[in-house]
Amino acid sequence: MSSPRKIRIGLAGLGNVGAGVVKNLQKNSALLTTRTGAEIGVGKVCVRDLAKSRDVEVPAAQLTTNLQDLLTDPATDIVVELIGGTTIAYDFVADALRAGKPVVTGNKALLAERGIELVALAEKENVPLYFEAAVAGGIPIIKAVKEALVGNEIDSIYGIINGTSNYILTRMNDADLSYDAALKEAMDLGYAEADPTLDINGWDAAHKAIILAWLSYGRWPKPEDIHVEGIENIAPEDIAFADRLGYAIKLVGVVKPGTDHRIECRVNPAFLPKSHILAHVNSVYNALAVRGDVVGETLYYGSGAGQDATSSSVIADIADAAANIAHDAGFEGFLPHGEHGVSVPLSETTSSYYVRLAVDDRPGVIAEITALLATNEIGILSIVQPEPDQPKKGTATLVLTLHDTNYGTIASALEKIEALPCTQKKPVLYRIESI
Amino acid sequence: MSSPRKIRIGLAGLGNVGAGVVKNLQKNSALLTTRTGAEIGVGKVCVRDLAKSRDVEVPAAQLTTNLQDLLTDPATDIVVELIGGTTIAYDFVADALRAGKPVVTGNKALLAERGIELVALAEKENVPLYFEAAVAGGIPIIKAVKEALVGNEIDSIYGIINGTSNYILTRMNDADLSYDAALKEAMDLGYAEADPTLDINGWDAAHKAIILAWLSYGRWPKPEDIHVEGIENIAPEDIAFADRLGYAIKLVGVVKPGTDHRIECRVNPAFLPKSHILAHVNSVYNALAVRGDVVGETLYYGSGAGQDATSSSVIADIADAAANIAHDAGFEGFLPHGEHGVSVPLSETTSSYYVRLAVDDRPGVIAEITALLATNEIGILSIVQPEPDQPKKGTATLVLTLHDTNYGTIASALEKIEALPCTQKKPVLYRIESI
Repeated sequence: MSSPRKIRIGLAGLGNVGAGVVKNLQKNSALLTTRTGAEIGVGKVCVRDLAKSRDVEVPAAQLTTNLQDLLTDPATDIVVELIGGTTIAYDFVADALRAGKPVVTGNKALLAERGIELVALAEKENVPLYFEAAVAGGIPIIKAVKEALVGNEIDSIYGIINGTSNYILTRMNDADLSYDAALKEAMDLGYAEADPTLDINGWDAAHKAIILAWLSYGRWPKPEDIHVEGIENIAPEDIAFADRLGYAIKLVGVVKPGTDHRIECRVNPAFLPKSHILAHVNSVYNALAVRGDVVGETLYYGSGAGQDATSSSVIADIADAAANIAHDAGFEGFLPHGEHGVSVPLSETTSSYYVRLAVDDRPGVIAEITALLATNEIGILSIVQPEPDQPKKGTATLVLTLHDTNYGTIASALEKIEALPCTQKKPVLYRIESI
Repeated sequence: MSSPRKIRIGLAGLGNVGAGVVKNLQKNSALLTTRTGAEIGVGKVCVRDLAKSRDVEVPAAQLTTNLQDLLTDPATDIVVELIGGTTIAYDFVADALRAGKPVVTGNKALLAERGIELVALAEKENVPLYFEAAVAGGIPIIKAVKEALVGNEIDSIYGIINGTSNYILTRMNDADLSYDAALKEAMDLGYAEADPTLDINGWDAAHKAIILAWLSYGRWPKPEDIHVEGIENIAPEDIAFADRLGYAIKLVGVVKPGTDHRIECRVNPAFLPKSHILAHVNSVYNALAVRGDVVGETLYYGSGAGQDATSSSVIADIADAAANIAHDAGFEGFLPHGEHGVSVPLSETTSSYYVRLAVDDRPGVIAEITALLATNEIGILSIVQPEPDQPKKGTATLVLTLHDTNYGTIASALEKIEALPCTQKKPVLYRIESI
């Protein structure tokens, strides 16, 4: 065997994931050399503060606070961007591509918001851009969609792609915690950021869904066009009703083809049937159920975040980039369209639904509500008026599941139901995804 | 964009999967060209009987009954081997490699039994060999282990990798069917071959486990060295006890590193805890839980067999082979050792265990048995003497779960228990996998 080629990465960012990349490249260095035929090492590393103490050791001579040093160093074969954000990171990735350096990034916001520009630039410069770590941490979902399912039209993707919210929902279900108590627990355990806003309002998942929609259909949904709903308002009683009805409530990112080449891309809490394996993805784990027209149903499961899991994907991208360099293969295109797509408006998306109503506890109310649904041509799958755990005098809870129909139709019917004198509170509505 | 390169496959075998490859290459032809930059078409196709009518149309001029025609045709860029068997298929794949033609195969028996020779030959000839379809049909497990987890030591693989047996076990559990009734149902539905022997005796799964062990550790376990146990003897009462104890019985292929560079590779029915997602893989679906030292737990799920699912993997391999040709990349090595590994003997493998005993229903029996276990330093996790559904006078059922210990220790203790006068039948033993 010939002696291994030397490959040096220029690393931008030595935070949680960056430190994981350095640590795990060192840890499995011999293994990686055997498997890839390349000796992959860390070259220049850009940090914000040279003086800060770190978990991993990088010789001082390799540290810099100037991102450009990574690009001007001729020893840099591959650039790894782990600084986050969409401005400095954008300029840096663009500069790297222009400098002919293959880029590996884990920056989901950057791709979701400005991927359309970066992919076009990568194609123009004939330089590859890798981003496995940007979607679902250690799960190789990019490789699965881009390579393993290359011969498939993507019929649908349903992803549990935010570990923090999945942890919260799992604990609300398994331990009967309130939303606030579960969120606090997630923060105490380090499963939620100090500011968990993007995790619980759905936008972290939305960034990932946008990237998957592009990969699947070749066009970028505009962030402002897609429906994004978080888990902040989920009540324990809906978690409990879901369980009784044979469902689990999960925050899902959904990607599907719409009519006229439009793209359905949305993030919302939803009821998933327990007969489907996706409903059994618990705690901080992520998973993506991908249906292809040839392969049928597939699912990919693992840790969606964390230093080690995410660095596993960064290292896989580095290995692919190293092979690409060895073969001088250039931009690795896959539906490399640089266009925005048209999103299906929420009102036109369809699914089944779960509705919970608080209504007057008197004869005739069920008849009134079901008549209104019938007038709007909404079919009822099931209806339950459960005996309440803690009865409230004068109030009856009504739980309905409704046949597949447009979201717009349901939303407008619920407005009418809310306006009925017998209705005491704003109706609660969740999608039942027909996964 | 430049006009796409033309790539022609030479297809050996137009059976179930071969026909699926032709059908699905045609179906998604435009998509594949956009994604790969290559126009992938079918060239020469070798069949056994030219006159046979088929589901897919291949022009008569492309059909041949001579495998060598695929290799001598200069238009053949990639050879796809789907004829099965380990003799003619071996010679053909070897000839193709020697002729410098990249090979895609879905032949698990060929690789498990003679992969050691074929991989060495592929490396010597510097020609790539692809085999995604050989393990778990449409699930991209080869790509996952070889590429996505390239930076990981593989800590363990637990795979449900035989759809027929998983269907039978699922129906025994969900519909309380007997083994025979579930097998008949599987055959009636086309989920089992006319001769289901290799599916139910574990050898189909064993071939896949051997390939995964090689990919993970770089050495080939010898088929004759590994423990392979099927599902033929699973009793409905053990399915029911498993369920009550919080487990599901599944046929699993297990791959783990042993001490002294040995490899643990075995196939057996096992109790899987319902808290793990692998226990929720039902019906004909397959899944593999792969633990890497960097990424942690991952899982890959999908259809493990069938015309379309398997052809999805064949087509992904063809796309990879086409890219390899474009870049003139040659053999794509990954731990390309051509050596046999040493297998850990069954007696040295460890796990927890489930034991069911039929014993005399009289005082002192539990004391006698637990004393014998204690003498052999086997710890008891739980013990239940359930009230029988159909009591049999004079017989008590005793269900024990036992702490992690060597299989050899348990087996020898059970021999002693079987020899006790109070024991009425051969004890039933299953592993509880600590996944």
